[in-house]
Amino acid sequence: MARTPAHDMFDRDTASKALGIELLDAGNGQATVRMTITGDMINGHAMTHGGYVFMVADTAFACACNSKGPVTVAAGGDIAFLRPTRAGDVLTAYAKERVTQGRSGIYDVTVTCDGEVVAEFRGRSRVIDRDGTP
Amino acid sequence: MARTPAHDMFDRDTASKALGIELLDAGNGQATVRMTITGDMINGHAMTHGGYVFMVADTAFACACNSKGPVTVAAGGDIAFLRPTRAGDVLTAYAKERVTQGRSGIYDVTVTCDGEVVAEFRGRSRVIDRDGTP
Amino acid sequence: MARTPAHDMFDRDTASKALGIELLDAGNGQATVRMTITGDMINGHAMTHGGYVFMVADTAFACACNSKGPVTVAAGGDIAFLRPTRAGDVLTAYAKERVTQGRSGIYDVTVTCDGEVVAEFRGRSRVIDRDGTP
Amino acid sequence: MARTPAHDMFDRDTASKALGIELLDAGNGQATVRMTITGDMINGHAMTHGGYVFMVADTAFACACNSKGPVTVAAGGDIAFLRPTRAGDVLTAYAKERVTQGRSGIYDVTVTCDGEVVAEFRGRSRVIDRDGTP
Repeated sequence: MARTPAHDMFDRDTASKALGIELLDAGNGQATVRMTITGDMINGHAMTHGGYVFMVADTAFACACNSKGPVTVAAGGDIAFLRPTRAGDVLTAYAKERVTQGRSGIYDVTVTCDGEVVAEFRGRSRVIDRDGTP
Repeated sequence: MARTPAHDMFDRDTASKALGIELLDAGNGQATVRMTITGDMINGHAMTHGGYVFMVADTAFACACNSKGPVTVAAGGDIAFLRPTRAGDVLTAYAKERVTQGRSGIYDVTVTCDGEVVAEFRGRSRVIDRDGTP
Repeated sequence: MARTPAHDMFDRDTASKALGIELLDAGNGQATVRMTITGDMINGHAMTHGGYVFMVADTAFACACNSKGPVTVAAGGDIAFLRPTRAGDVLTAYAKERVTQGRSGIYDVTVTCDGEVVAEFRGRSRVIDRDGTP
Repeated sequence: MARTPAHDMFDRDTASKALGIELLDAGNGQATVRMTITGDMINGHAMTHGGYVFMVADTAFACACNSKGPVTVAAGGDIAFLRPTRAGDVLTAYAKERVTQGRSGIYDVTVTCDGEVVAEFRGRSRVIDRDGTP
């Protein structure tokens, strides 16, 4: 695949790398990432901690919104948890730009496991201010 | 502090423990947790990965909504990122029940660092179905 | 077009009818509605009141999620306002099911005016309890 | 009560006036408004149309975020519908600033009827650009 600014950003993303997140594809306002749930990602209900489901969605979102150019950060987002997952499950997150207007954008991210939707995320992006605040 | 079902749940929360999250207080629909940002939590923009900010908010949310009794899970939530943080920063998340209606609830979580708000999260909870789906 | 439960529901929707909302299409988890902004829909900033932009989106959402069968209500939703509109503008809202899981569903609604996106709405639906609460 | 920029804005708010919304109080990042549900506000499920519940919440939000000074618009918001209401019910919405950061703000709005919470809204505000886009 062609390299994009998202690939450069992902190369510097220590957090995603440390979790074993792989960038499968990025370009043209879209991105796909993958992460395997480990035993260290399980919460007190014996399910994947919601933070890790968000993590994989947010990483796909970041790669999608930086796949075209100017440095863009997450201003926020909403996640709906639809199905629990467990250690050993492989989560795939596919992010796609829905609309941009001025410096703002909206991206939809679907997280799946074995072809079933486990979460839906909608991210709000913002092209970054010079002082680094979203 | 008095033990609550949230304390038992947190004791089994491998994910939060592995990240060094501490449960400072839980009870009566409220909870406070704390986490120190490490070098492994930094994203490609040299800021704390949004997934970790969500993680600390979501953990406080889970402890608050399980502090009173029946097993409750996150159905979803919205996070707004207001200020970037860095490695070495200590994040504190305070969660508080806003309203419950039937099996649904809404909780507000504020994440602060050195007294400044870095994120605001609003979680939607659901008392769990017998089959484990939210 | 084929009649669906959404058409029956819309026929009883006094609120939408009183505002001149037209149901253009409904079926298979999708719906399209249209409303003309009148002088009575303008807020103190001389733009369409956000409540009316939400109204047209929410009506499309209701028609989409009732287009297939069991009585379904809005549990909630998030709207992003992207462009202001004015009196005389014609808003079209297209709603489409994104995913359903158990009694919950997620629908995406795009509101446009002259081919430009003015708002994006994501609705959370719930098949209704016998006691009428969402 | 002391007049604020919110009062001036509300005086020009044709939409809210046409619906009989009353501004009960505004100042210091807070506002309270009230609206009586009429027969023209009922949806196809014989409940208040969600658009009108949003309307009253959004109006309180607008008054709260314009109560202190610079012209501020809604960038978006999330509403959770908790209890249905009917014709004749009187809805009261109380909005309160939660946090501001730069040109962005977050406001919480609770909609009640007879002392019971019927909806919770969280609004995202933005001090307006010179070209009028949020």
